[in-house]
Amino acid sequence: MKYEPINFNEKYGLFTETWSPKVIAEMNDYQFKLAKVEGEFVWHVHDDTDETFVVISGTLVIEFRDGGVTLNEGEMFVIPKGVEHRPIAENLCKILLIEPKGIINTGDSDSVLTADNDVWI
Amino acid sequence: MKYEPINFNEKYGLFTETWSPKVIAEMNDYQFKLAKVEGEFVWHVHDDTDETFVVISGTLVIEFRDGGVTLNEGEMFVIPKGVEHRPIAENLCKILLIEPKGIINTGDSDSVLTADNDVWI
Repeated sequence: MKYEPINFNEKYGLFTETWSPKVIAEMNDYQFKLAKVEGEFVWHVHDDTDETFVVISGTLVIEFRDGGVTLNEGEMFVIPKGVEHRPIAENLCKILLIEPKGIINTGDSDSVLTADNDVWI
Repeated sequence: MKYEPINFNEKYGLFTETWSPKVIAEMNDYQFKLAKVEGEFVWHVHDDTDETFVVISGTLVIEFRDGGVTLNEGEMFVIPKGVEHRPIAENLCKILLIEPKGIINTGDSDSVLTADNDVWI
C-alpha cells in the first residue's frame, strides 16, 4: 500500500520506555510524537515555541508556577512559549505531542530525563 | 480557572454543520480545528503546506489520484503539500485537522463547500 494510516495503539505497542517521545509523523517542519509517561517530569521551558499535548489515554497533570491543568482522554492543551511547566502522571498515561522538529523534551533543563531526539517508530 | 483543558467532545457539542472546520487552539502559527464530515468533499490541493487529519470518531477515507487511505478512530495521516486529495465519509465522522493558520478547506477549488476561515468555538 502506498498510503498507510498511522495507528496510535499500534505505535504504542512498539516501545515501553516512559518520557521518551517517538516520532510518528512530520507535517512541514513540525513533528507528531507519541510518549508514555508516568511519575513526575522536570520543570522546564521552551523559550522559542508553543508545545501541544493531547491525551490519548489516562490522565496528565501539567503544573505551571501559578496553577495547573488536568487533561483526560480526548483533551488537549497548548503550552505557550516561555511558560515553565512540569508534566505529572500518577499512573501510566499515553500522550501525543505536537511541536517543531528538534525540540528537546526537557527544554532548558539538564536532566537524566533528556531523551534522544528525532527517534522514529 | 486560568488554565482549562480543551475537550474534543465538549467542543463537538457546540456545532452541527458538516465540512465547516472550527478552530479550537493555536500553536505558534498553526491551528487545531475540529470538523464533522459526512458525504463526499471536493477534490483539492494545498500547494504550500502539508495537512494533518486525525480521526476522533467514525471512518474517513481520503482518496488520492493514485490510491487512498482509510482512517478509523485513533488513526492519523499527513497529506503532503501538492498532493490532490478528496475526503469521503460514508457516515458522520469527527476529525481533528492540524494545519497552518489561514488554510482554506477547499484549497485551490472554488466550491460551495468552501467554509469561513478562522471560526473559533
